[in-house]
Amino acid sequence: MSTQTTKNTAVIGAGVIGLSWAAMFAAAGYQVRVYDPRPDLADILHASVALYISQIPAVQNAGADVNALAQNVSVAQSVEEAVCDAMLIQEAGPEKIEFKQALFAQIEQFAAPDAMIVSSSSGIPSSVAGLKMRDASRLLIGHPFNPPHILPLVEVCAAPSTAQRHIDVLMDFYTHLGKKPIQLHKEIKGFVVNRLQAVLIREAAFLVEQGVVNMAELDELFKQSLGVRYATIGPLLSSCLGGGAGGVSGFMNHIMNGLIETVGQTPLSAASIDLLETQSQEAYPAELRAQLIQKRDRQQIWLVSGLEAV
Amino acid sequence: MSTQTTKNTAVIGAGVIGLSWAAMFAAAGYQVRVYDPRPDLADILHASVALYISQIPAVQNAGADVNALAQNVSVAQSVEEAVCDAMLIQEAGPEKIEFKQALFAQIEQFAAPDAMIVSSSSGIPSSVAGLKMRDASRLLIGHPFNPPHILPLVEVCAAPSTAQRHIDVLMDFYTHLGKKPIQLHKEIKGFVVNRLQAVLIREAAFLVEQGVVNMAELDELFKQSLGVRYATIGPLLSSCLGGGAGGVSGFMNHIMNGLIETVGQTPLSAASIDLLETQSQEAYPAELRAQLIQKRDRQQIWLVSGLEAV
Repeated sequence: MSTQTTKNTAVIGAGVIGLSWAAMFAAAGYQVRVYDPRPDLADILHASVALYISQIPAVQNAGADVNALAQNVSVAQSVEEAVCDAMLIQEAGPEKIEFKQALFAQIEQFAAPDAMIVSSSSGIPSSVAGLKMRDASRLLIGHPFNPPHILPLVEVCAAPSTAQRHIDVLMDFYTHLGKKPIQLHKEIKGFVVNRLQAVLIREAAFLVEQGVVNMAELDELFKQSLGVRYATIGPLLSSCLGGGAGGVSGFMNHIMNGLIETVGQTPLSAASIDLLETQSQEAYPAELRAQLIQKRDRQQIWLVSGLEAV
Repeated sequence: MSTQTTKNTAVIGAGVIGLSWAAMFAAAGYQVRVYDPRPDLADILHASVALYISQIPAVQNAGADVNALAQNVSVAQSVEEAVCDAMLIQEAGPEKIEFKQALFAQIEQFAAPDAMIVSSSSGIPSSVAGLKMRDASRLLIGHPFNPPHILPLVEVCAAPSTAQRHIDVLMDFYTHLGKKPIQLHKEIKGFVVNRLQAVLIREAAFLVEQGVVNMAELDELFKQSLGVRYATIGPLLSSCLGGGAGGVSGFMNHIMNGLIETVGQTPLSAASIDLLETQSQEAYPAELRAQLIQKRDRQQIWLVSGLEAV
């Protein structure tokens, strides 16, 4: 990144995701030019950016001057004007392959040679989205979760040809914003979290369709059980701790594989369970599990005791 | 329930689930007799019950006398001694069909005629578990989530032949304990939440097996995105609010069905989406959605800002 352009960023697309990125970039002290063909762009920036900045947990904790930070965001009249001197360009347009391919080719025309180009796509890998670019090696995925200025995660994913140094710069940038970027090791359609969401939503819709529960009941069932749990530990650590002395392999063999068959799917193979067991011993060593359980319980008690009053 | 037996309960099985029920019953002022063939039963009750009682959110909020409440729990030498004068008997034994069938036949022999018999099974419906009973109409499922004394939900499920008044008594009992019982409208293997858990864990294991992420990364990805979200709103309300003006049908048609195909499953049918749309308009009326979003965001900000320090 050249010194000249270090603090300029661009956001293309001013839906909820783009507006949220603009707020995050501005809150971290970057200048942000936003382009979207919508005729009410200035109004929507005015209505949303300061509000979103005020909701960023780090901004709330720091008691920062929200209106001053909101001044970092300005309207661009074209893609060219938005991106021409930006060190990072975050795309947040419609989730359509042809649209994104054309947009990235256009951005590439006007962007500085060392600018990073990032797609917010929730499922289209950059090796697909960048097919119309001359050099797609600086196109990456930075996929946030709605509302992006509140939920910490950004899924970072690169095409096989992308240089790791580009990825490292993006990871540092998001970390500096106060986000939790996590890099996937391989491209896969839908990335990780939306694939998990898809299987969950499909089974949820099936249970409603079967009349086992209605929509509101299903939501409450999930929220009051796995919702609380997964805010404090992920689903695989949950499986590991749920297996007691048998660990994750005990849990999968004695509890989960039967349930997986119950929902009509192929149980986990012995090799898959062995891999989880090996990884669990490294990530969650046996001697730390009592502590992990204590932390889970402490955080769950805090959540259950406090959430409803918020 | 006769006056004489109103405050006596029994727990059969002293694993984590049974110990947790004993703590909850004791904390609500019930006498609890616990039976388990394990030789260290007295020791494990001593080591666990007071600790679990102290972790119950309602007990913490009330500043109750934990040791006094723990005195409500005592050891029984047999199933007969545990259940003979109990108004409610909660089973928490191994998840094996034959074991549970034999145990419920034995419990029925010794239980008072008006006692309720409840299974903690995580997946075996009561119409199966009660097959060896003379009269299975008072056998119900009350399935908690680990750790049961902390997570609010109890899934309540009855066989088609069960009288609604039995279910109502059980729902009231759990509510009185400070739990959130939710009744399923139909029996289904695995009930609701564990079916959702099963599809999620299966896809999670697949992503680890494919080398897209490792176990710890997957846990962190989920926790920092859908984990935070689902602690505040369930997956279907999330779909409803994620669809903007298009509501849940817009979300399913334009976003989710494509992802469901991506993970190799059959997309939701038009009829299934219509059903969700109809239910969403009743459960989450359009005029309340701005408020629902505000509440979601407020709770998520609270959670993200506070959790790590707990």
